[in-house]
Amino acid sequence: MQFDRIIKNGTIVTASDTFVADVGIIGGKIAALANDLTDSADIIDATGLYVMPGGIDSHVHIAQPSGDGIVMADDFESGTRSAAMGGNTSILSFCMQEKGDSLRHSLKVYHDKADGECHIDVAFHMIVTDPTPAVLGQELPALVEDGYTSFKVFMTYENLRLRDDEILNTLDAAKNTGALVMVHCENEDAIRFLIGQHEANGEFSAKSHATTRPIAAEREATHRALSLAEIVDTPIVIVHVSNREAMEEIERARVRGSKVIGETCPQYLMLTADDLDQNEMEGAKFVCSPPPRDKESQDACWDGLQRGVFDLFSSDHCPFRFDDPEGKLIEKGKKSFRWIPNGIPGVATRLPILFSEGVKKGRIDLNRFVALTATNHAKLYGMYPQKGTIAIGSDADIALWDPEKNVTITNDLLAQGCDYTPYEGLEVTGWPVHTMVRGKTVVKDGELSGEKGYGKYLARQKSSLTA
Amino acid sequence: MQFDRIIKNGTIVTASDTFVADVGIIGGKIAALANDLTDSADIIDATGLYVMPGGIDSHVHIAQPSGDGIVMADDFESGTRSAAMGGNTSILSFCMQEKGDSLRHSLKVYHDKADGECHIDVAFHMIVTDPTPAVLGQELPALVEDGYTSFKVFMTYENLRLRDDEILNTLDAAKNTGALVMVHCENEDAIRFLIGQHEANGEFSAKSHATTRPIAAEREATHRALSLAEIVDTPIVIVHVSNREAMEEIERARVRGSKVIGETCPQYLMLTADDLDQNEMEGAKFVCSPPPRDKESQDACWDGLQRGVFDLFSSDHCPFRFDDPEGKLIEKGKKSFRWIPNGIPGVATRLPILFSEGVKKGRIDLNRFVALTATNHAKLYGMYPQKGTIAIGSDADIALWDPEKNVTITNDLLAQGCDYTPYEGLEVTGWPVHTMVRGKTVVKDGELSGEKGYGKYLARQKSSLTA
Amino acid sequence: MQFDRIIKNGTIVTASDTFVADVGIIGGKIAALANDLTDSADIIDATGLYVMPGGIDSHVHIAQPSGDGIVMADDFESGTRSAAMGGNTSILSFCMQEKGDSLRHSLKVYHDKADGECHIDVAFHMIVTDPTPAVLGQELPALVEDGYTSFKVFMTYENLRLRDDEILNTLDAAKNTGALVMVHCENEDAIRFLIGQHEANGEFSAKSHATTRPIAAEREATHRALSLAEIVDTPIVIVHVSNREAMEEIERARVRGSKVIGETCPQYLMLTADDLDQNEMEGAKFVCSPPPRDKESQDACWDGLQRGVFDLFSSDHCPFRFDDPEGKLIEKGKKSFRWIPNGIPGVATRLPILFSEGVKKGRIDLNRFVALTATNHAKLYGMYPQKGTIAIGSDADIALWDPEKNVTITNDLLAQGCDYTPYEGLEVTGWPVHTMVRGKTVVKDGELSGEKGYGKYLARQKSSLTA
Amino acid sequence: MQFDRIIKNGTIVTASDTFVADVGIIGGKIAALANDLTDSADIIDATGLYVMPGGIDSHVHIAQPSGDGIVMADDFESGTRSAAMGGNTSILSFCMQEKGDSLRHSLKVYHDKADGECHIDVAFHMIVTDPTPAVLGQELPALVEDGYTSFKVFMTYENLRLRDDEILNTLDAAKNTGALVMVHCENEDAIRFLIGQHEANGEFSAKSHATTRPIAAEREATHRALSLAEIVDTPIVIVHVSNREAMEEIERARVRGSKVIGETCPQYLMLTADDLDQNEMEGAKFVCSPPPRDKESQDACWDGLQRGVFDLFSSDHCPFRFDDPEGKLIEKGKKSFRWIPNGIPGVATRLPILFSEGVKKGRIDLNRFVALTATNHAKLYGMYPQKGTIAIGSDADIALWDPEKNVTITNDLLAQGCDYTPYEGLEVTGWPVHTMVRGKTVVKDGELSGEKGYGKYLARQKSSLTA
Repeated sequence: MQFDRIIKNGTIVTASDTFVADVGIIGGKIAALANDLTDSADIIDATGLYVMPGGIDSHVHIAQPSGDGIVMADDFESGTRSAAMGGNTSILSFCMQEKGDSLRHSLKVYHDKADGECHIDVAFHMIVTDPTPAVLGQELPALVEDGYTSFKVFMTYENLRLRDDEILNTLDAAKNTGALVMVHCENEDAIRFLIGQHEANGEFSAKSHATTRPIAAEREATHRALSLAEIVDTPIVIVHVSNREAMEEIERARVRGSKVIGETCPQYLMLTADDLDQNEMEGAKFVCSPPPRDKESQDACWDGLQRGVFDLFSSDHCPFRFDDPEGKLIEKGKKSFRWIPNGIPGVATRLPILFSEGVKKGRIDLNRFVALTATNHAKLYGMYPQKGTIAIGSDADIALWDPEKNVTITNDLLAQGCDYTPYEGLEVTGWPVHTMVRGKTVVKDGELSGEKGYGKYLARQKSSLTA
Repeated sequence: MQFDRIIKNGTIVTASDTFVADVGIIGGKIAALANDLTDSADIIDATGLYVMPGGIDSHVHIAQPSGDGIVMADDFESGTRSAAMGGNTSILSFCMQEKGDSLRHSLKVYHDKADGECHIDVAFHMIVTDPTPAVLGQELPALVEDGYTSFKVFMTYENLRLRDDEILNTLDAAKNTGALVMVHCENEDAIRFLIGQHEANGEFSAKSHATTRPIAAEREATHRALSLAEIVDTPIVIVHVSNREAMEEIERARVRGSKVIGETCPQYLMLTADDLDQNEMEGAKFVCSPPPRDKESQDACWDGLQRGVFDLFSSDHCPFRFDDPEGKLIEKGKKSFRWIPNGIPGVATRLPILFSEGVKKGRIDLNRFVALTATNHAKLYGMYPQKGTIAIGSDADIALWDPEKNVTITNDLLAQGCDYTPYEGLEVTGWPVHTMVRGKTVVKDGELSGEKGYGKYLARQKSSLTA
Repeated sequence: MQFDRIIKNGTIVTASDTFVADVGIIGGKIAALANDLTDSADIIDATGLYVMPGGIDSHVHIAQPSGDGIVMADDFESGTRSAAMGGNTSILSFCMQEKGDSLRHSLKVYHDKADGECHIDVAFHMIVTDPTPAVLGQELPALVEDGYTSFKVFMTYENLRLRDDEILNTLDAAKNTGALVMVHCENEDAIRFLIGQHEANGEFSAKSHATTRPIAAEREATHRALSLAEIVDTPIVIVHVSNREAMEEIERARVRGSKVIGETCPQYLMLTADDLDQNEMEGAKFVCSPPPRDKESQDACWDGLQRGVFDLFSSDHCPFRFDDPEGKLIEKGKKSFRWIPNGIPGVATRLPILFSEGVKKGRIDLNRFVALTATNHAKLYGMYPQKGTIAIGSDADIALWDPEKNVTITNDLLAQGCDYTPYEGLEVTGWPVHTMVRGKTVVKDGELSGEKGYGKYLARQKSSLTA
Repeated sequence: MQFDRIIKNGTIVTASDTFVADVGIIGGKIAALANDLTDSADIIDATGLYVMPGGIDSHVHIAQPSGDGIVMADDFESGTRSAAMGGNTSILSFCMQEKGDSLRHSLKVYHDKADGECHIDVAFHMIVTDPTPAVLGQELPALVEDGYTSFKVFMTYENLRLRDDEILNTLDAAKNTGALVMVHCENEDAIRFLIGQHEANGEFSAKSHATTRPIAAEREATHRALSLAEIVDTPIVIVHVSNREAMEEIERARVRGSKVIGETCPQYLMLTADDLDQNEMEGAKFVCSPPPRDKESQDACWDGLQRGVFDLFSSDHCPFRFDDPEGKLIEKGKKSFRWIPNGIPGVATRLPILFSEGVKKGRIDLNRFVALTATNHAKLYGMYPQKGTIAIGSDADIALWDPEKNVTITNDLLAQGCDYTPYEGLEVTGWPVHTMVRGKTVVKDGELSGEKGYGKYLARQKSSLTA
């Protein structure tokens, strides 16, 4: 066979296997795995490197408005660029329905934002904020047919959250169409209650973000979401789980027979509520929801990654700039933590952190790394086997990792739109030194190659859970 | 000492002790426990009988409207009469706030219904359906001061249920005033969703009442109520628990450090969902919420009574007549289970059922019987030591039980306003043959003595949990 | 009535009730509870005092040999004297079978030690170390008939521990005769293994006592004991539980339907393994088995006392002197922790510690205090209603407590044979200022009155669990 | 490339991936995965078939004596033949140390039995029955170096079981050498106790085998084994788990941080204790330990396969003939269940049962099937990547499965030494129609090809858990 490109002598890692072989690529797809492939003009030496499926980050917020005219710090160009820097080859970004808008209209808005801008492949989850009968009965089934096979609902944020009856109806519509529903689980009323208490007590600083969103509020909403899905009898994804109590809810639901997928994120392994307790607006840079907890919760989340409580490891990338020229963001955030933009960046740091802290420190093995960062995302969100693995016929979405490369993380390295990273100064071992999408190099040795617009929109199949 | 009355040679049973002694009564109060009391003109021979605190039923609905002009089948005269027949000396009835009404107004309505009508002593829990700032901030604290120290909120029934923010605010008001909140835990939205599904599938009969209120809906609301109370940091009572899953939520909350009281009822020990699956409106006579479950849940509830998951055993007496002259009730109930009046009678059968099935069958001992049916109610609802025990200074509220008397339960025996009992034909061993309130006989050998109006309203202290 | 003695105006506390009344005593028994008793020449003013059942300590080692010629530091005279100082009116001491001896022989030895020496009443549990067919088939049934209705077995200590088959046979013999079996749960083999490891690593000091007896060794043996009792289908008592994991085993066994009683002790509320980590032989004074754990385990044990995981609170009094004239004890203990005498004193401090740390600090109420320290012991070990409560016909075993008296615990106060207390310097609020046994004062204001020999041996009924 | 053999157009299934490709084999190893491979004289058309790693059965008893001169019904020739018929390409058989023998001696015995007899590849676990210091300190480390990297210990069977100290020492030796220990968890003393009770009650039939080995006996030993491994701090494998309670022990140990592997077997999915309750010696054909339980336990075991409680699915093949010419076996077994040979055959039926009942009925997916039956065994027992997957460089141990083939299981199909199968008459869908070992066909369409002796002994690496 004549190959467009050959990756030679690397150690191939899939979600279950590790072996040395060459990879032959034709037409952007993996055409051969064998030793001693030679027929190509483009041979990449991967000796000593891991040849892994490029990361799929299934939880990324890009170019999403966040109230008061504040928009996220990444557009699709910078967001996908930064993702590629961090070893990703696909992201699933959110398309947020504004109340009153149709889902189709919302999709058009986000497609317009993304078209021609992306460096890597992109698909969309719909955020359902206005589940009218028309939306659930007509739009949603049509969208699932068209390849938008996952939806997200919020149980928190005053303007996003759905009531239980709306969640039930959305889950039911998902069940009827084979879509998969992701749920952000925090009890909004409990949080509002605590915000009121805090402000009444004169507590306005960033650290109150954590104390107004306690584990009990997350655990409550997690159990409620699981119960509603149990009543409808359809699978769900519990996103960004931060602590043991919510994990136990997931495990109990599984024992009851429910199909539940759990997700956690780097912030719940690496940060704690203490990071929010810093002077001025420094603490604000660690504000996200659920908030980071404590050392014990970090250990719990590692345990969850090991034991399969979590099958997804995502970034929940949700970037805001603190040097916004008009200073609006800072101004309001200083008044009260309730106005601090809610989210932190992470699409570029997700993989190196898990590799260094997880694989290199012996907490998880290489195969589990691949499963958690790529394969499971592809399967659960209907992109497999096109994406998420190294197998014959799959897209040649590949990251070459140097497992011994030592890197000190700085925001400059990440090429993102955000002006900081919560992991500034973190030293990691292992780095994605070469990222290719559909056989074409997108980033090599930290340099972007190719042009924006190479990344394509991905219509998706149904989830492996609902198919 | 000269006694008004002496009960001689009985076996006195308290929540912890069992011993033979005479009881001397002066001025309606217990003045002496001793052997060989003689100085009285009124000596009752209790040889071979148990001398127990009269039952306190802290969960009784009387004279409460139930929509469409249907009112409960018991007014205060018949309700307290039937309670006395079943060995009770006090009940706690509900005073339901109609939306838009003040609590004071609601109280006046219920006091008017009760005044001069009662055979035994009566106190009121307020049902809060409209927790406005005025209600929570002004009325509720004043009412607690006046002796209305417990409140109930509903998480189900469209016209009664509170949203989470309302529950939080009610719990917070309770915390600030030392009141105790009871919660009916079922997720209304989940039930509505299932009712919609059932009716869409043409399922309209009584048995669908049970399948539209599954354990998951009760477990969900139970955990939510517990979580809201955890966030507010105040004790709560989970009423009428029907199954193991909800029990486990209570136990986990306690391990987390919450103060939680659990209550169960005879229907969860004696009935199952199969009882609803009967022809015509026969099944309707077993409709109550939560619905009876299955044999396994019955066993779980017994286990809960033994292990202290439950500290309260109440009737949730909520009677409706099926021979209503206008037939309105039947007519609507036949159309759909959703219109069947929701509740069953039980104030008279609670004690004999627990005595016979519990004490006589070796599941609980006599002291636990007294705790579950009288002492704990008195302590938790602020009536102790005036009520709920046999001790010096306490009201002489006493039931004499013949532990060997065999009785076949029929509705005729119960002297209630309801035209049926779900336990018709049940054979029990042990019966309260003599009930006295404040030293005065109210029922003896199944005959009512004295006059209505003897029963008094009881202003209460704060709960032992919040005092 | 004419009373031998009247206790006036005290607040009587039972396991369920609290009320002000006078207590009239005739012939060493409680003859009347009433207001305004007057007919006695001996009237004790108890105004402002609690009138509580005298403590029953059901876990006390006295005059027991402990290898190498070392005998416990208390004989029956000093042990019962110290118990009385601490508000106790009865103890259950152990009678240890030496291997090869008959139980009858062992009993004779201990009766000889106790006869004529005791200040308060005493009963015996048998420690079965040699469960031959003759012992189990003939002696044990006869002894149960004679009032020795409880037995203890050990799963640790090389010379005491029984194998599983021996435990099964002992439990079976107990089941057949209605006796109750107490089990000391630690896995001896695991401990031996760890002692070997420690000594091989040159770790010989007292603190290694704790690390060689980890929670896993206690949890394992606890689950095993519970499982063996489940297989035989008979109740058991798990004594001196030190941590949450063992507690959870007890709770799970109960959910499975087993009858299990849990006991904890002051050392698990007040001490930690850090106390063993002291210079020279100071740490040795805190050596007991299971060892004290950490703060989290202390919290767990408090939780267990509150939630009913534990129904018994005992001392496990097991005293050794560190000033033994020949210095043998110290000499060997310095060589290796494995030779440190295993046990600490506590019969006099049990009640003040629980009163001060439990009742006064709001962790438990007065009634629970009485249940945990007296009533439950009496019921479970077949001494009720003669002992353990304040009720008509019961022995007038009463402790008057001054709830506001502040005392700094010193060993001098305790009048024990041991030359130290692990609680030296502890400040407590609440003290038993007057202890009477069968109506006769034994200790008043810290002074012993009466003579040794007043205390009687108690033949017991069967346990409330097996009767 | 020139291939010795090409498998064309099959659907390749690994533990994580499913894709259509050709497999090119050179020198018995997988040399290429690609589309359109052509260069071979030996091309197998696999269109419509699954190309899966051959099964690895890591729990097989062959040619093992079982007391009284009874030997298992399979020698290595028939055992490996039957295994190949059922789609297996490797087995791990046991080498049992007789008490007093050295491990080396035992190995020689089993190697002599196996050499030249096997149709597929074979490795050995050592059963340690006599863990003397010499065995643990000298032999065991040397054997691990030589590739015998796993050991099994028994907690049941009078002549095999180890005491806790012996288990601790064996685990410790394993820890020090990187070996992995498998544990048969049942409490022998409890079983002996119950056997005694049963026989005393005149209960001698096969069904008593199940009631004398209750879940409590398995749960107890499981928790004990887990606790001993926790104390030593080394991984273990809990083999042949039969019920939910033992599963929960495994899960709790993992939450505590232990590395535990769980295994279950077809008998716990397909049989119940009722199968033992048959006339004459028919019930005896279902006697194995632990015994099959009930429907609820079957559901639990399926749940465990789905949720990852179990990572291994093995046969515990342990065959006995009931037509033994001398009738010894039947004669004794009729006297009492305690003499019934303990074990059932299953090496040939394991894979078809899991495929049909698991994959085809939607309980597990294809990748999980491969993981449970091959890949995980290879990784955990040190045979990966040589065995257990389809990857470049791995042995071409491949089973081609026809997923639609309907087969009625009969003993004749299985080509085993045993004269019955417990699954006689079971209808399955899906069958391994072609089994090849190291690229060479061993069974095709139910016909054995090649010669005995082709199968090799496998020296193993250390487990992935201990490496």
